[in-house]
Amino acid sequence: MGAPFTSVLIANRGEIAVRVERACLELGLRPVLIASEADRAGRATPGEGGPLAIGPSAPGRSYLNQAAILLAARVTGAEAVHPGYGFLSENADFAEAVEAAGLTFVGPPAAAIRIMGDKIAAKRAMMAAGVPCVPGPGEPLPEDAAAVRAIAEEIGYPVIVKAAGGGRGMRVVRESAEVADAIAITREEARRAFGRPELYMEKFLEHPRHVEFQVLCDNHGNAVWVGHRDCSVQRRHQKVVEEAPAPGIAPALAERIGARCAEACRQIGYRGVGTFEFLYENGEFYFIEMNTRLQVEHPVTEMTAGVDLVHEQLRAAQGAVLETARFAGEARGHAFECRINAEDPTTFVAAPGRIAAVHFPSGPGIRVDTHVSAGYRVSPYYDSLIAKLIVHAPTRADAIRRMQVALSATRIDGIATNLALHERIFADPDFVRGGVDIHHLEKRLREEPRGEA
Amino acid sequence: MGAPFTSVLIANRGEIAVRVERACLELGLRPVLIASEADRAGRATPGEGGPLAIGPSAPGRSYLNQAAILLAARVTGAEAVHPGYGFLSENADFAEAVEAAGLTFVGPPAAAIRIMGDKIAAKRAMMAAGVPCVPGPGEPLPEDAAAVRAIAEEIGYPVIVKAAGGGRGMRVVRESAEVADAIAITREEARRAFGRPELYMEKFLEHPRHVEFQVLCDNHGNAVWVGHRDCSVQRRHQKVVEEAPAPGIAPALAERIGARCAEACRQIGYRGVGTFEFLYENGEFYFIEMNTRLQVEHPVTEMTAGVDLVHEQLRAAQGAVLETARFAGEARGHAFECRINAEDPTTFVAAPGRIAAVHFPSGPGIRVDTHVSAGYRVSPYYDSLIAKLIVHAPTRADAIRRMQVALSATRIDGIATNLALHERIFADPDFVRGGVDIHHLEKRLREEPRGEA
Repeated sequence: MGAPFTSVLIANRGEIAVRVERACLELGLRPVLIASEADRAGRATPGEGGPLAIGPSAPGRSYLNQAAILLAARVTGAEAVHPGYGFLSENADFAEAVEAAGLTFVGPPAAAIRIMGDKIAAKRAMMAAGVPCVPGPGEPLPEDAAAVRAIAEEIGYPVIVKAAGGGRGMRVVRESAEVADAIAITREEARRAFGRPELYMEKFLEHPRHVEFQVLCDNHGNAVWVGHRDCSVQRRHQKVVEEAPAPGIAPALAERIGARCAEACRQIGYRGVGTFEFLYENGEFYFIEMNTRLQVEHPVTEMTAGVDLVHEQLRAAQGAVLETARFAGEARGHAFECRINAEDPTTFVAAPGRIAAVHFPSGPGIRVDTHVSAGYRVSPYYDSLIAKLIVHAPTRADAIRRMQVALSATRIDGIATNLALHERIFADPDFVRGGVDIHHLEKRLREEPRGEA
Repeated sequence: MGAPFTSVLIANRGEIAVRVERACLELGLRPVLIASEADRAGRATPGEGGPLAIGPSAPGRSYLNQAAILLAARVTGAEAVHPGYGFLSENADFAEAVEAAGLTFVGPPAAAIRIMGDKIAAKRAMMAAGVPCVPGPGEPLPEDAAAVRAIAEEIGYPVIVKAAGGGRGMRVVRESAEVADAIAITREEARRAFGRPELYMEKFLEHPRHVEFQVLCDNHGNAVWVGHRDCSVQRRHQKVVEEAPAPGIAPALAERIGARCAEACRQIGYRGVGTFEFLYENGEFYFIEMNTRLQVEHPVTEMTAGVDLVHEQLRAAQGAVLETARFAGEARGHAFECRINAEDPTTFVAAPGRIAAVHFPSGPGIRVDTHVSAGYRVSPYYDSLIAKLIVHAPTRADAIRRMQVALSATRIDGIATNLALHERIFADPDFVRGGVDIHHLEKRLREEPRGEA
């Protein structure tokens, strides 16, 4: 499995298209780039040539248009398709269509994407591999309050009671005496909101961190984990700053969890790169989901593991055998990534526009993954990520200082960005100490909305 | 020895001033920048503020003006002076004047600079430490031809006979039968050219490579070597491309030479960073000189040794104790550096002018050390180096490919550069194979002056 190929259509845009293009060139592969109307018009130096026109600006008519992408691969003679992240990267039907067209999908088999795309199936697969999940029965609660109490005792307080129907109707229960009332009220809310009385219960994590494990697999049953990352600095479930390794994780525990992630990959026949996302609280990991693709934050792992994940991904897709021994070492130093977005610094609303001038820092331990340069037009059609500023240094403290200096040396004129937010995060004593939870940034923003303090 | 300081005057310009400035900021030190008239006028965004005016454009009146630099340190309250490379970096009198003014010179003691600045004293110090030098008596040849032949036999053919006076009057002797004639002719030439008949003899190296060892020392008698570099790709004794590690050097040999370099440092009371330059031929090293300062090509060692040499240099100057165990590991991967100069691509004459637009690549394994951006004016007063493009990858072949891709992604508009020469070097099969000698590039340029082939 996995076929040799010499050309790769990159079914994506922005910084990740540049990243994959360069990796292809470095491996002697011919990259084929596509671009929507907005992206073709937005280039700093428009004109003839450049990426292949794939369709109108709306993503549904360009980067999500499977037929157009397959046609583009056909007319350009591309033999493989790299989906990047977002867009079609976790679409099992697309992976299947690519392979059905006789091309190689640079990613896992469609079946593995499907399993991991289904919350219940994913949890089952993880439990089979010994990956710890959020405790809870995974089936509707019984009517009887005593039976519910028994379930809660088994999970351990606090627990959360959720309506089957969706996000509304959720209640945290902290002790046995609260169970009966909580069930009654939530069931009533669920009935009113969704017309269905079913309730689920699972462990409630008060101050979890988001810690994830990177895996890398070939098509021959070899799988390794290559480090963990902390992505707890989030706003509205969007990661803002990531780091590797996740601070304060006991090496023996990381080794145990990482090994189980690799085992899960072997069991589901995974291929290429992937990420197991966990909540982490009080020294315990709880699986939440797997991302069956390259992630935005992959560079922090590359910097600390000394591995090029896109190279590895392409090699795995070509059927190369993974030399697992290469990944045995510990993380070297510490890396951070700041997602630099074109957005209003106080409202966080995307702020498209023309970049008048841009200067990114460079030098030892600094990496910038970006597609923008002076004259580039940030489009309102896509996400607002314009660059990833990544630093690497021997220790976490060194890396923080390096990021502070790198942020202060970054200039982006003509559009609004979240640079000030990053400067604020890297000056936050709790963040500097390490190990903030996923609620930390929003809490800070509520306390000091404009960062006056 | 070595004193704590909190601010550093950077007595230099260009990319190295930016490099040192950032290192200072990362270590929490206040950097003080200076600039000549040309450099102040050349900035992309001139106007108020910016570096301190140090004097007119001519280097002798600005970056070489010791009194002006010491005054600048006084008025800005700088407590240390970093000399960068070139300019005053190997001037023992300046190092002394800095210390006499109560400031810390970020570099070795003046005495160590003096020893290494004197060819004879340096060779003696190296031999005392067991560092191999170019064989030869180091004193004028006797008159008697038989005695000269005996010296030549001891050195081993080929040898070179040189006039004491200077570069003219040099003759290579390949066998015993040629000695008498060679001596007579060269002596006559020497007499005519310099009015002095003294001749010296040493081993002649036909196809040497330039291989150098990086050292790092503190003020407490600790010294380590931190890797070697190959800088054989030269034109008119100017390095063009450098790499680390030097390819094909046996690890045991490198360890022996490196250890002797470190020993030499201990014997002469060296401090900070330094480089021992060698010719390397047929598996043997021959010391040529020591550079008692940071070198242009230091980044290739940083990338492969995982060390920040400017941080280390500043720490050593502050009196920190060097943790030598940190430098025990082998080189990780391979790194190259291309010196990008503003120069005519065929005549190699410096080509100053205004940079209209500039785009450097970024991404995994890519580092650019530069001071230029769009709008910057390259001055005719100083050397033509505008950027150093550095790549790092797991293997030499990967690094070559990465540099090829990085070069093709580099755009500098408005001035002439040597980018095409770099592209040509990285496409040269002999260079790609590794281990070309110091004559290789010039030979190539004679064969195919415009790179048609």
